[in-house]
Amino acid sequence: MAIVLGTNQYGKAENRVVRIYRETPRHEIHDINVSSALRGDFSSAHLVGDQGNVLPTDTQKHTAYAFAKEKGLVSIEDYGLALATHYVEDIEPVTGARIEIEEFAWERALVDGVEHDHTWLRKGQEVRLAAVTVEGTGADQQVWVVGGLKDLVLLKSTGSEFAGFLQDPYTTLAPTHDRVMATSLTAKWRFSSTDVDWEATYVGVKTILVKRFAEVHSKALQQTLYEMGKAVLEAFGFIAEITFSAPNKHHFVYDLSPFGLENNNEVFHADDRPYGLIQATVTRDDAPDAGPAWVGYTGLV
Amino acid sequence: MAIVLGTNQYGKAENRVVRIYRETPRHEIHDINVSSALRGDFSSAHLVGDQGNVLPTDTQKHTAYAFAKEKGLVSIEDYGLALATHYVEDIEPVTGARIEIEEFAWERALVDGVEHDHTWLRKGQEVRLAAVTVEGTGADQQVWVVGGLKDLVLLKSTGSEFAGFLQDPYTTLAPTHDRVMATSLTAKWRFSSTDVDWEATYVGVKTILVKRFAEVHSKALQQTLYEMGKAVLEAFGFIAEITFSAPNKHHFVYDLSPFGLENNNEVFHADDRPYGLIQATVTRDDAPDAGPAWVGYTGLV
Amino acid sequence: MAIVLGTNQYGKAENRVVRIYRETPRHEIHDINVSSALRGDFSSAHLVGDQGNVLPTDTQKHTAYAFAKEKGLVSIEDYGLALATHYVEDIEPVTGARIEIEEFAWERALVDGVEHDHTWLRKGQEVRLAAVTVEGTGADQQVWVVGGLKDLVLLKSTGSEFAGFLQDPYTTLAPTHDRVMATSLTAKWRFSSTDVDWEATYVGVKTILVKRFAEVHSKALQQTLYEMGKAVLEAFGFIAEITFSAPNKHHFVYDLSPFGLENNNEVFHADDRPYGLIQATVTRDDAPDAGPAWVGYTGLV
Amino acid sequence: MAIVLGTNQYGKAENRVVRIYRETPRHEIHDINVSSALRGDFSSAHLVGDQGNVLPTDTQKHTAYAFAKEKGLVSIEDYGLALATHYVEDIEPVTGARIEIEEFAWERALVDGVEHDHTWLRKGQEVRLAAVTVEGTGADQQVWVVGGLKDLVLLKSTGSEFAGFLQDPYTTLAPTHDRVMATSLTAKWRFSSTDVDWEATYVGVKTILVKRFAEVHSKALQQTLYEMGKAVLEAFGFIAEITFSAPNKHHFVYDLSPFGLENNNEVFHADDRPYGLIQATVTRDDAPDAGPAWVGYTGLV
Repeated sequence: MAIVLGTNQYGKAENRVVRIYRETPRHEIHDINVSSALRGDFSSAHLVGDQGNVLPTDTQKHTAYAFAKEKGLVSIEDYGLALATHYVEDIEPVTGARIEIEEFAWERALVDGVEHDHTWLRKGQEVRLAAVTVEGTGADQQVWVVGGLKDLVLLKSTGSEFAGFLQDPYTTLAPTHDRVMATSLTAKWRFSSTDVDWEATYVGVKTILVKRFAEVHSKALQQTLYEMGKAVLEAFGFIAEITFSAPNKHHFVYDLSPFGLENNNEVFHADDRPYGLIQATVTRDDAPDAGPAWVGYTGLV
Repeated sequence: MAIVLGTNQYGKAENRVVRIYRETPRHEIHDINVSSALRGDFSSAHLVGDQGNVLPTDTQKHTAYAFAKEKGLVSIEDYGLALATHYVEDIEPVTGARIEIEEFAWERALVDGVEHDHTWLRKGQEVRLAAVTVEGTGADQQVWVVGGLKDLVLLKSTGSEFAGFLQDPYTTLAPTHDRVMATSLTAKWRFSSTDVDWEATYVGVKTILVKRFAEVHSKALQQTLYEMGKAVLEAFGFIAEITFSAPNKHHFVYDLSPFGLENNNEVFHADDRPYGLIQATVTRDDAPDAGPAWVGYTGLV
Repeated sequence: MAIVLGTNQYGKAENRVVRIYRETPRHEIHDINVSSALRGDFSSAHLVGDQGNVLPTDTQKHTAYAFAKEKGLVSIEDYGLALATHYVEDIEPVTGARIEIEEFAWERALVDGVEHDHTWLRKGQEVRLAAVTVEGTGADQQVWVVGGLKDLVLLKSTGSEFAGFLQDPYTTLAPTHDRVMATSLTAKWRFSSTDVDWEATYVGVKTILVKRFAEVHSKALQQTLYEMGKAVLEAFGFIAEITFSAPNKHHFVYDLSPFGLENNNEVFHADDRPYGLIQATVTRDDAPDAGPAWVGYTGLV
Repeated sequence: MAIVLGTNQYGKAENRVVRIYRETPRHEIHDINVSSALRGDFSSAHLVGDQGNVLPTDTQKHTAYAFAKEKGLVSIEDYGLALATHYVEDIEPVTGARIEIEEFAWERALVDGVEHDHTWLRKGQEVRLAAVTVEGTGADQQVWVVGGLKDLVLLKSTGSEFAGFLQDPYTTLAPTHDRVMATSLTAKWRFSSTDVDWEATYVGVKTILVKRFAEVHSKALQQTLYEMGKAVLEAFGFIAEITFSAPNKHHFVYDLSPFGLENNNEVFHADDRPYGLIQATVTRDDAPDAGPAWVGYTGLV
């Protein structure tokens, strides 16, 4: 038996890059949190403290900011691809690179109803996500792109049931045929192509997720998530699979009967913890291999 | 010399009340975080542990939820007034009550471009605030209402300078005539009346704040805040004063020169800490006395 | 009627200064989060954007770090006094300065039971606080020092009651003579002198707070807080008053009766929100005027 | 091509269970955040909204609290094993269960130097972790137990270098032979046995991690982590592997030269973001298969 180095990766996490395009008076803004991780043979750094193969995380920071200028920063998927490919192709010991990105959306300030050229409000709704993994060079190069969103808080005040469930001696829950259903959605979708209109796809996926959440009469959050995922896959042939993590943000009907008041699903306590947590993937049965697409780095994406 | 009880208050903080109106198929939603604090003679609770004057915080919780049904929950200022007045008028030992509210806005889900009747997305932008203080009963009753917002993140990518400042031996900052200016705005405004269209006023204040942030060519965040506040007071005669707390969310131009790249205010590092913090009040010189209007409770409002 | 500038202050918030003393092999560490705010006549900055009186917040940042070397950083109260006095005495337009500090404690790593010379673990328990305000120069100079702590989480599993309370139609709470009482304590104490052994006093105050929380049989959190404060004032003649903000971190007895299990105060649900919140000050009846001692800046202290 | 359901799991996350043992006047306290996830054939819930196989998350909540009484809550690994085994063995559709636990440590209050029987301070240092996975029943049952900790903040003020690293055109970093090295450590170790003294092992692992962090002269965080992991594996034969996620919490030497001050590693800025992030596993070359041991649920563990 021997003690050996196992899986490892390292990089610079949470570079807060803001890119302004200002070629015309109408500026554009892109605001991201980007992390890079390098994979390869760094065993000498671990085993004997030899940094000869280690590109400093400080260098990765510089590269993240420099690429926002050199390569541009419009679609986070493209920017992530540029960074990941660079590390694998240009830095000798690197055999794989993982780029994870959060993007914060801004909307233009309105002045007398007109969009302002260079002033914005942070939208504050969901955070857009991307995770790009590149391995190998030349003909052997493989690329995985994941898009996504998190912190999209959805609620419906009717059209949701929960009944007919399994019971055991610890079960006291009453079935319900009308409840509030709410979640703070995380969704991530894996592309099977990089020849994608990233912006249109993002808008399209979000639109479908919201639409299906709204219009599916829900017998369980599981069912709603499945319908949401299925609709996304039906709409976008280049999305191989989509995965959800959906806390059931409980809204408990507040008992007002001691005070002589009826509460017909009108007044709720929005509870913090504990919460139900549903996780599910909807996939194509011929989806290409996920490889390291889901092997994360920061826990942010 | 004696040791005595000083100022004190107590209550139930952060009741997460959600109120759905569902009389028609098109539901309405109001989602708040409400805290109540009671003031009065509770010295026997402190000095000898006698709770005879202490209305339990559990009761205050029930009241917050019950009032969302009994009195309704549409405008948070009205709901806060109902709660505060109730405590002062109906609970014998209570001489003053403070109600603090955060409100989380929702927007309707769009299904094929049409607003859905009972499904929403949390907007996620700013949090709306209210703080209501009531003292006394009958002819002696006094009422103070503060409205506000927090977490409104604003940024302009040009139109901001910082130059001509005072220098001392610790000063190394170079003046600039073109910089990114950004803040996460907290603004609170004190009403001199309760005969107010709360909803229209809130929308109006936010609109003015954003407009003036956008259109004022800024020589300092101080100046911009003053212009924002002045415009609000000019527009709403029943607002006595407005106070701002505005962190200067620094966006530092990233030095790309070591890499042979120009950076003409295009690539920034959005830094976390430390940050400049500007606080200022704009007021009328004949504003009525603020009394306990600004005497807080939870630190949330 | 005119619109005018009201109260204002500005500064650099949350400078994360770490000071290592390394004159001997046994290093010392001090780790703080310090904010400075300047008060004075800055009206021209607000009204016309003239920065002539404005010492940049960037300069205040430099000063915070430089003073950690020039003046030293051992007791946060002394370091705060040095900074505040500097601004008032050396920067012409400044008539008042507020310094707020959080301190994070470290304990030495143990290697084979022996304290290590230059390795530490962050203690992680309470955060120590200080707030120093200085106004005026020369014979007119006035100084206020507040010490404190926050995030000290205390719990007792018996020896706490809540009964005999006021009831109204919204009251359903049953009285209890044995409950868990827990809080995350914030306490701040105002010194009436600066001729104080700050380190010994801090340890002494914390020790007394914990001791009295433990040994007072509690009929209410209010009573316990009063006893804690009274003991501190009795022990330290140079503490004029002490103020508490104490959330009642509810531990609800979990109802296990549906499962045929007794629960004699053995299994609890530690709830997040809402929570009772008790605030009280214990003071001397001859305490010197508090002046601006409690006029805050960042909301951190 | 068909769209199908992929991997899925569901449960109740973040049950905040507090267990007091009070058989004698000297009480004991155990304070945890526990999540349970069930795995099995829940496809009908997803595909057609049929809950017949779905044990409600509300039931899982009850079970978590009930088991704290029925089975006891002392070592989180034992408690997790009891819960996971129960779900797999007693709930028909469940083929696998994942229990994730955070534990918050408390220390006894001191009253005149003596430990109090029923009053505690939350220690506040690291959070202890456990993740238990059980699959199958009877002879086919397999069990995986992971222990761990997070938020253990370590710092050494000398004895750390970073030099001899790889350089590319984006590299500007100067090598250093004396720097502050700090991290907020997450470490998780996988047991190859369940016949373990969980409490002694936890203390032992933490002691070794701290000791090696302190005494290894570091040429890189990678090297230090490897030495820490190696020492743990050498000490505990029943630990198969240990994995680290270690942000490099940068302490930048503050440039005081513009103010005529030397800064010989005495004054630092503790920066927030970005940060280096090192992740590595140290393992035995004959470690048993990890199976689903690392397949997470909440993101908390």
